[in-house]
Amino acid sequence: MTNLFAGIAGPRDAERFDVLLETPAFTLERIVSTGQATPPGQWYDQARNEWVVVIRGSAGLRFEDENGPRLLRAGDHVLIPARRRHRVEWTDATEPTVWLALHYSGR
Amino acid sequence: MTNLFAGIAGPRDAERFDVLLETPAFTLERIVSTGQATPPGQWYDQARNEWVVVIRGSAGLRFEDENGPRLLRAGDHVLIPARRRHRVEWTDATEPTVWLALHYSGR
Repeated sequence: MTNLFAGIAGPRDAERFDVLLETPAFTLERIVSTGQATPPGQWYDQARNEWVVVIRGSAGLRFEDENGPRLLRAGDHVLIPARRRHRVEWTDATEPTVWLALHYSGR
Repeated sequence: MTNLFAGIAGPRDAERFDVLLETPAFTLERIVSTGQATPPGQWYDQARNEWVVVIRGSAGLRFEDENGPRLLRAGDHVLIPARRRHRVEWTDATEPTVWLALHYSGR
């Protein structure tokens, strides 16, 4: 058994990705962000759906088809359908942001 | 978009289950416990695997093949394989316990 808050990086470390579960149907990962953002002008365009929740910290999630980023705080979750272009505008600069991301195919 | 901590019941309310995502491959649900436990002598014996994480609060999770309950606190996650009998010995009596549970078949 492990803990979602174990091994949280300090503010100057790289973003960290850990796969918690992987099956043919889905991948569940923990992400720890420490101020990182998607590089300017870059968008994610994923083949799979992604459900994400912020467990700790905060982030700005921008969909290309929306005018500005959505503010995500602890407990906020959002479904990013496959092929809906999006980017992370910012993550919390003062504390690590811990996410769970569930990637899956199909409806 | 919604929040995992929305609609959290008070300490005298029943346990609450909300399906967040359902696909042919898995079901993701939020559970809010407010002091409930599995009834005495009763065990869960599930056909699907269940990955659970405690987001807030605490609980005692007992596997039949272990001597005592495991203490789960915020961030602790555990995989309960299909058919491994288990029960919740207790949940926090002082604050709501918020769980995420991912039920899935196969390996």
